[in-house]
Amino acid sequence: MKSDSFYYAVIFSSQRNSSDCAGYEQMAERMVELAKIQKGFLGMESSRGSDGFGITVSYWQTLEDISAWKSNSEHKIAQEFGRSKWYESFSTRVCKVEREYGVGK
Amino acid sequence: MKSDSFYYAVIFSSQRNSSDCAGYEQMAERMVELAKIQKGFLGMESSRGSDGFGITVSYWQTLEDISAWKSNSEHKIAQEFGRSKWYESFSTRVCKVEREYGVGK
Repeated sequence: MKSDSFYYAVIFSSQRNSSDCAGYEQMAERMVELAKIQKGFLGMESSRGSDGFGITVSYWQTLEDISAWKSNSEHKIAQEFGRSKWYESFSTRVCKVEREYGVGK
Repeated sequence: MKSDSFYYAVIFSSQRNSSDCAGYEQMAERMVELAKIQKGFLGMESSRGSDGFGITVSYWQTLEDISAWKSNSEHKIAQEFGRSKWYESFSTRVCKVEREYGVGK
């Protein structure tokens, strides 16, 4: 997941409403597949609890890669659906990863 | 959640095993309470799916605040329990939040 020097994380937090679960799942899976083939994509991890609150973190090589992904036309449609239909609230934070540590990965 | 200029995020991703759920829940709740009263704490969000994979992001004013929290004696005991008993794997990333946007918060 690491690039040579540093890399970036996009923290996307969202509260799902209860509408259109099938449509949401389908779009979410498609966005994962689409993100994976974007330039600079390094990885992604995601969780959502039974209360509908979820966090997805995607990792990218550069800020430009993140901007390009944000502007991707299919992704923009998904964002619009999310805003108008699927999310009660959401927030996005773009971060520079300064250091990391962990086990078992 | 925002400080005056910039702030930091700690992304903690973990895969729970299935052992000692009651003990884990109790410790997790205690750590949230303890984090909240630490210097520089700005907020926290957390989710865990039915597959046991979870992401917790905590937000802090400075890197020093994050180091102090990491070294907190009660937190260190919780970390040791997590490592030896509760987590199949985990990773921690310390990040600088570069920008944010969102709705409904």
